[in-house]
Amino acid sequence: MGLTNTKIFIQEVSPRDGLQNEAVFVETEEKVKLINQLGDCGFAKVEVTSFTSPKAIPALRDAEEVMKQIVRNPRVDYTVLVPNVRGAERAMACNIDEANLVMSASESHNLVNLRMSRSDSMRQLKQIIDELSGTDIAINVSLSSVFGCPIEGNIQEEEILRLTDFFASQNVRGITLCDTTGMAYPTQVERVCSLMKRRFPQLELTLHFHDTRGMALANSLAGLNQGINRFDASLGGLGGCPYAPGASGNVCTEDMVHMFELMGLRTGVDVVRLLSIVKTLPQLIGHPTWGNISKAGRRLDLHPMPSSLNQDFTHSLTQHKSTT
Amino acid sequence: MGLTNTKIFIQEVSPRDGLQNEAVFVETEEKVKLINQLGDCGFAKVEVTSFTSPKAIPALRDAEEVMKQIVRNPRVDYTVLVPNVRGAERAMACNIDEANLVMSASESHNLVNLRMSRSDSMRQLKQIIDELSGTDIAINVSLSSVFGCPIEGNIQEEEILRLTDFFASQNVRGITLCDTTGMAYPTQVERVCSLMKRRFPQLELTLHFHDTRGMALANSLAGLNQGINRFDASLGGLGGCPYAPGASGNVCTEDMVHMFELMGLRTGVDVVRLLSIVKTLPQLIGHPTWGNISKAGRRLDLHPMPSSLNQDFTHSLTQHKSTT
Repeated sequence: MGLTNTKIFIQEVSPRDGLQNEAVFVETEEKVKLINQLGDCGFAKVEVTSFTSPKAIPALRDAEEVMKQIVRNPRVDYTVLVPNVRGAERAMACNIDEANLVMSASESHNLVNLRMSRSDSMRQLKQIIDELSGTDIAINVSLSSVFGCPIEGNIQEEEILRLTDFFASQNVRGITLCDTTGMAYPTQVERVCSLMKRRFPQLELTLHFHDTRGMALANSLAGLNQGINRFDASLGGLGGCPYAPGASGNVCTEDMVHMFELMGLRTGVDVVRLLSIVKTLPQLIGHPTWGNISKAGRRLDLHPMPSSLNQDFTHSLTQHKSTT
Repeated sequence: MGLTNTKIFIQEVSPRDGLQNEAVFVETEEKVKLINQLGDCGFAKVEVTSFTSPKAIPALRDAEEVMKQIVRNPRVDYTVLVPNVRGAERAMACNIDEANLVMSASESHNLVNLRMSRSDSMRQLKQIIDELSGTDIAINVSLSSVFGCPIEGNIQEEEILRLTDFFASQNVRGITLCDTTGMAYPTQVERVCSLMKRRFPQLELTLHFHDTRGMALANSLAGLNQGINRFDASLGGLGGCPYAPGASGNVCTEDMVHMFELMGLRTGVDVVRLLSIVKTLPQLIGHPTWGNISKAGRRLDLHPMPSSLNQDFTHSLTQHKSTT
């Protein structure tokens, strides 16, 4: 693939996109500790919290405290979700690096998820952009359901371009193409990324995959093949899919970084450090995490040769099982 | 990727590679029923059983009965694992289409898995090949641990070529490159497949991935990119990884077919039928299966628009959660 040594930007979303989906309230000091640890893992960006109404997302009701208490690593961009002008005002008081604005590429998904039409969302996000203009806060827009909507099905590529055109004309720094419910597939990802790269060379493009249907890493590969170098990911795969209870959610950071590093890409992210943080998550959230590396170990975490081949191997060591 | 309409051959291995790993004995009639159902799904090949010593793999001690009782679909190749000449004699009495021979590309893994050196394995497999010569039984050789050994680590590509050279000189039909413990990664898969395709254009090459580290579908994509069109897969991901208890095993057939079909490839396999069979597996094996589509549904299994946006959505419907 000729990508060896390519710099890849990994953006960790678990504190916001992960924790907002959890039933438990993770204590502020635990959040701060987690985000401080994540800040030292080598991520390009960490999505810290959401300045949404505390009533709407009680799990993130401590947005101000968290933003103010974390220790900022100067090499990391700290981004927060900002849903409206009120949220923007709150976020601006917390010295954020980036505001992440959200709307859906699908009319139905926008209505269900944000309780307004897409044109109302565009108006509301424009107000936020105006509010932030003149500050040094960067703006990113995350477009949900770009690769498919769980209610409408396929999304026309013209719609993705139309929405991106609008935000590009507002001089946002970046657009994130979100596969909110895991409907993306590799050839589609290649097509959409190629289209977006050609049409919007000035924008920072991020891919945000969910592993709902097991294709997140394959889709990441497809994105890489089209020259995309920014990926959202969530430690332990935190952040579920509301339409498929029990299914996996966000692509798992440690699995993605593990694969990219094996491919010779430079993520700058320390997998060993990630794995030590993943271990602490179940205690915080009250259930096991998703992902593979945390269970199977890294590729070259080797096993010793049994000391005697005549010894009674445990059944799990596949006695004569001709394992392929 | 320009692969639209490419014919892909999916080879189902759950009855052998899956069931041999299960603690329970699946009754012969249940096995026969499962294999008969699989025979009608559109697979190119089904790996039925293993003619290993019943003592070594009690779960498959009914190899003869199974082979004799199944209803054969004339469009499917029925293959069986054959470990030695005794197994070959038993298999020949059962009218098999193909014998699948197994050894490891790794000396250590061969010692642990088959209790003999690779050179002894080569001699033993040569005896089987001689035994089968003059019959119309095709021969495939599955090379384990080609992409990495859990004991030795990396495997030299020269070793893969050396072993394949030997079997190519014995006029086998195909070689399966097995990623036995999920150590393959996409750029490696591209490199090895490219090498193998160029050196052995006469051989039927199959990729056999495990999803131990979450990369199975990404690796399949990498194989496709190098023109590989045959893939082993296991329904419900049956068939574990002995070195990582709890980790996923064989790549999940229904997830693979779902992705390939979305990409416009022609697998000929009916995903809906697969999903109905997957549902029956937990009862057979006594535990849940792996895989994603069986939990999340297919990409376009859509959800209705909530009848009223003012109604009290269930928490799982992400009220104002700005799901990205």
